[in-house]
Amino acid sequence: MQNESKRRSAPKAKNGKANSPRATAADVARAAGVSISAVSRAFTPHASISKTTKTRVLQAAESLAYQPNPLARGLITRRSGMIALLMTEVTNPFYPTVLETFAQAFSKQGKHVMLFTPAQDEPLEALLPRAFGYGVEGVVITSARPTAEMMSACETAPVPVVLFNRTVESSAISAVCCDNEAGGRTVARFLAEGGRRRPAFVAGLPGASTSLYRERGFTSGLIDAGLPAPLRAEGHFTFDGGLQAAKSLLSCDVRPDCIFAANDIMALGVLDGLRRVGGIRVPDDIWVVGFDDIDASAWPSFGLTTFRQPINRMVAETLRILDLADTDAPTSPSTVLVPGRLIERDSTGRVPAL
Amino acid sequence: MQNESKRRSAPKAKNGKANSPRATAADVARAAGVSISAVSRAFTPHASISKTTKTRVLQAAESLAYQPNPLARGLITRRSGMIALLMTEVTNPFYPTVLETFAQAFSKQGKHVMLFTPAQDEPLEALLPRAFGYGVEGVVITSARPTAEMMSACETAPVPVVLFNRTVESSAISAVCCDNEAGGRTVARFLAEGGRRRPAFVAGLPGASTSLYRERGFTSGLIDAGLPAPLRAEGHFTFDGGLQAAKSLLSCDVRPDCIFAANDIMALGVLDGLRRVGGIRVPDDIWVVGFDDIDASAWPSFGLTTFRQPINRMVAETLRILDLADTDAPTSPSTVLVPGRLIERDSTGRVPAL
Repeated sequence: MQNESKRRSAPKAKNGKANSPRATAADVARAAGVSISAVSRAFTPHASISKTTKTRVLQAAESLAYQPNPLARGLITRRSGMIALLMTEVTNPFYPTVLETFAQAFSKQGKHVMLFTPAQDEPLEALLPRAFGYGVEGVVITSARPTAEMMSACETAPVPVVLFNRTVESSAISAVCCDNEAGGRTVARFLAEGGRRRPAFVAGLPGASTSLYRERGFTSGLIDAGLPAPLRAEGHFTFDGGLQAAKSLLSCDVRPDCIFAANDIMALGVLDGLRRVGGIRVPDDIWVVGFDDIDASAWPSFGLTTFRQPINRMVAETLRILDLADTDAPTSPSTVLVPGRLIERDSTGRVPAL
Repeated sequence: MQNESKRRSAPKAKNGKANSPRATAADVARAAGVSISAVSRAFTPHASISKTTKTRVLQAAESLAYQPNPLARGLITRRSGMIALLMTEVTNPFYPTVLETFAQAFSKQGKHVMLFTPAQDEPLEALLPRAFGYGVEGVVITSARPTAEMMSACETAPVPVVLFNRTVESSAISAVCCDNEAGGRTVARFLAEGGRRRPAFVAGLPGASTSLYRERGFTSGLIDAGLPAPLRAEGHFTFDGGLQAAKSLLSCDVRPDCIFAANDIMALGVLDGLRRVGGIRVPDDIWVVGFDDIDASAWPSFGLTTFRQPINRMVAETLRILDLADTDAPTSPSTVLVPGRLIERDSTGRVPAL
């Protein structure tokens, strides 16, 4: 096996860097016989400009191969077309789907996602001033545990900031979330109506609002159904965490007959931990439910019953808040909770229609 | 189940937009008793400035809460600190890992990834002028099928462009790839030495260079080992594609005894298609091998033998090329092939040491 990378050089090609200076807005203005500000308005959606003038400008621009410079325009108009997305991790399959949904939705508006992920020992709040410095039009924060420092930086932000899939109590910034508490309650009711009696819960990272709300709804739903509070294990929002949680739950004195994991990636780990390690039959012996509805949940190997997060609607609500906030009228921060729904698959048994 | 999203409004908080004007470089210069260009140099890594002057500037900047404006500086110095990453899809688990690895690596250099994904009916080449307009320092193109139009746009790009996990024949732009052909050949040799005799191959998207090179190496490796050319099915680089490919391979007159899928996500679909749909035992009846080594390949449910792509090294090579090209000396475009290695797991049987 080779240890060295191989380098194949193409025949010496011309330098890729362009040599001729690019046409400027001033060049276009001269060619079209209009003012520079008319050129700028011709390239700004909804700006006030006559059809004739706009056509003249666009024709001149095309003949000069002029490309408007959003960087420069961003400084002037504060519409850089960039939205910052702060994510600490992208590998839990829920987040690539979120990222892709945002990128597509913003693309339709001619905007682009600028991804900020912190370096290993860098706190997330360090990224905010940098994002603002680039003149982004808005900031979406997701998959990160918002700290108090970050929250106060957001409160004085020069552009709208929205928390996605996170909420913070008494926050002065907007947030969009799946209704996690209602989701947890729905799962509890489903398990109770299915005759389950010994529930267990696998939690995510300590302090994560998503896990806390799901647990809160789950526990109160169980109590409402006359069931005991669930056994509890920590899963850290990872597959291996879920696998280890399953092993520890199997070693309890009283074995649970159903396990609700606070997200799908842990639930898949629970499934593998039960079946492959513990020799347990699912759903015959133990039911398993997750939360998110990532792609892998539908794979035949798993067939995971889960609570689906309405990502498309959550993204749409986030865009709506970014749009609304981007006027000069002060807006009240709000938390938008979007309802999800339970998707039944093979990891749970039959339940009389809810 | 609620159909309406709930909106919880926080008590009316102050408007999030900052009111006081931010300190400028001129303010800092005045406070420190230096020139504006000294201020700029103090914030530019490796710029020529005395330690005393730099300290004075940084202290003045801190007391004024000055934040350098990379947007403005980008226009002047052409070092915006942004790298464009063009990706058409992020959900094949290989790509989030690539994205995260790039984001981390660039973060260490104080740079950020600006993600460009095309809208539904938008060709990828439309994104390039936009990326250049933002003054990005470089462009990395991945998970996209490079077209001739895109390639000629890259050849006249004002900044370095690198293809990642893609190559284009006779390209005048640089590319970094796993050595896909060698990988395919390694898999063939492994299967031959393991006594397999009836191979099959599951291809990715037509025209994708990764799949083509892997197939080329695989087929030539089989021929070298005296084995027949493989049966072939199309998997489209998706899980479901792999699952369908398994079903179609099982319906062939002569059943294969090993299946090499051009990437892991298809191989997992093949595994599910064989085991859950076809009732086939793996590896007892059929061996399965993938390519990439995504996280899910290591899950107990799959235990997939696969050819691991050396993502960290590929990203490091990409950064190296971007750095090298970012001088005024013309550089020859090159293709860098990084060797990977076979990871044996449970989807294949025992093979005498290679």
